[in-house]
Amino acid sequence: MPPKKIDVASYAEGVLAGDRGTLSRAITLVESSRAEHRAQAQELLTRLLPHAGRSMRVGITGVPGVGKSTFIDGLGSMLLEKGHRLAVLAVDPSSTRSGGSILGDKTRMARLAVEPGAFIRPSPTSGTLGGVARATRETIVLMEAAGHDIVFVETVGVGQSEVTVANMVDSFLFLTLARTGDQLQGIKKGVLELADVIAVNKADGEYQQQARKAARELQGALRLLYGPDADWTPPVLTCSGLSGTGLDTVWERLVTHHESLESSGSLAEKRRQQQVDWTWSMVRDELLSRLERHPGVRDLVPDVEQAVRDGELTPALAAHRILSAFSHDGPSSELQ
Amino acid sequence: MPPKKIDVASYAEGVLAGDRGTLSRAITLVESSRAEHRAQAQELLTRLLPHAGRSMRVGITGVPGVGKSTFIDGLGSMLLEKGHRLAVLAVDPSSTRSGGSILGDKTRMARLAVEPGAFIRPSPTSGTLGGVARATRETIVLMEAAGHDIVFVETVGVGQSEVTVANMVDSFLFLTLARTGDQLQGIKKGVLELADVIAVNKADGEYQQQARKAARELQGALRLLYGPDADWTPPVLTCSGLSGTGLDTVWERLVTHHESLESSGSLAEKRRQQQVDWTWSMVRDELLSRLERHPGVRDLVPDVEQAVRDGELTPALAAHRILSAFSHDGPSSELQ
Repeated sequence: MPPKKIDVASYAEGVLAGDRGTLSRAITLVESSRAEHRAQAQELLTRLLPHAGRSMRVGITGVPGVGKSTFIDGLGSMLLEKGHRLAVLAVDPSSTRSGGSILGDKTRMARLAVEPGAFIRPSPTSGTLGGVARATRETIVLMEAAGHDIVFVETVGVGQSEVTVANMVDSFLFLTLARTGDQLQGIKKGVLELADVIAVNKADGEYQQQARKAARELQGALRLLYGPDADWTPPVLTCSGLSGTGLDTVWERLVTHHESLESSGSLAEKRRQQQVDWTWSMVRDELLSRLERHPGVRDLVPDVEQAVRDGELTPALAAHRILSAFSHDGPSSELQ
Repeated sequence: MPPKKIDVASYAEGVLAGDRGTLSRAITLVESSRAEHRAQAQELLTRLLPHAGRSMRVGITGVPGVGKSTFIDGLGSMLLEKGHRLAVLAVDPSSTRSGGSILGDKTRMARLAVEPGAFIRPSPTSGTLGGVARATRETIVLMEAAGHDIVFVETVGVGQSEVTVANMVDSFLFLTLARTGDQLQGIKKGVLELADVIAVNKADGEYQQQARKAARELQGALRLLYGPDADWTPPVLTCSGLSGTGLDTVWERLVTHHESLESSGSLAEKRRQQQVDWTWSMVRDELLSRLERHPGVRDLVPDVEQAVRDGELTPALAAHRILSAFSHDGPSSELQ
């Protein structure tokens, strides 16, 4: 909980100076859903926006067990050695249910956790995925204003959360594994669409050979699928978060992807479009949430849905009934 | 335009009797966006719903030039010979812009066009994609009530329209081509997610060999991507809509897919869920459309979007302003 009386100007100063304590408090403010905190958070973000935007934003995903924490710990340490300042954020869809985040846990990134150049923040543990996403997007602004030039946003391979993260970063890295034998772990439909770079992790010791074979095959499959005219076919690499092998190449390719966006002018446009899309997504969510909270609608929906499922009511009539029940004097809410 | 005075009961009778003239008029009624027609259409659909649902609904997509019309003409003729009754509908995203539909054109399906067992209907040529999709979904009900046991919904590979069609059918067929040489045409991201069966078309004459090679490679790539544990990996076949070669196998696989859905009980559940999703999609569209039509919002949006793009306004504040401008006494509309 941020203190009751918040001096937004001094928060802004502290963040811009890179003060870790202020940064933590600012994130807590941004994560709060209390109306009063929301207003102060927006005031703070408005002050900081002109100082944000100067980082490379990278989304990182992969199923549990793929070695995300060790990978981020290894790659992050390498980047700190090169003089970068790194923020590691997380969007954990399970945290909104369990109240405990498995992502962004500092104890799982032992090396980064003690580095002054790195700032690790676990996933907010309350609210909807939309709320977690909002807090994370706004935390990116804080991190950039505080001088971090690389921002990682970690997530797990659970449907909507990957799309959500892809919409707030510049480049998206997909980590996968070679299975026992030489087969790749099956790739969930929809992830390929999002990936800009793919890395077969845990390519160390006895697994190195099969990881390389799996990567070659996957690369061939992607070339075949995307055809020779694709703007960007995701490179497939091997690496080991544990030993550090191949992390430099993974980073090089992410940089190449970022540079190609930048030089074509599409990076700036992509970010601008993300902001506008994000605005409308908040508008839609809030409109729908007002509808769903409306007492008349809540009373009606179970029966209407059942009638639609049973084929007794057409979807158009059902939609009409729901909208009719949504009287326009229903409870509104503070989105801000 | 349907006549002013519509007798819904006699429309229902005529459709159930499979009368082609009534069916055409009923579709025109369903396609109309006039409030009075919408109400009558919903009355008609409510009467017919108990008689609908007994068809195999197949979506068919592929880029322009892949040979969709010839393929449907060939496959459809084969199905008519087997005693099926076939409806061919189309969702053409370009028709909502140009007012002219390139899909579902009878002159492009010469054999089917003269068959009494087939009913071909081009894409509605007005309204938004949402409106076209609504009319097409409702036309499926009419077609099934009229005794068609197979419904094809044709679309082109243009982003959202494929997702829209996938959400109204049981199985989705993706047609592609082998390129000059032996390479596959690149597959647009996102289509793989939707495809249940893939067919490399125009596998005739000198192209037969390279089509087979392309299909084999694509099949290998898909097996690799989906892994051995996938519920369903799309089979990749070759066929020629022109000569008819391979159409039987394509159909067999579509039937296998349908049967596997049916026997697992997921067909019924998939359709029920599609109806509920469709209801909420209409609710969302209408809410958003009310917001966008609101004069206060219309005045505000260009400036707000520009400020967001320029990084002067946070998305949360922008969303708040848009929602505040949306006073609750704005113009409503008749969704029904």
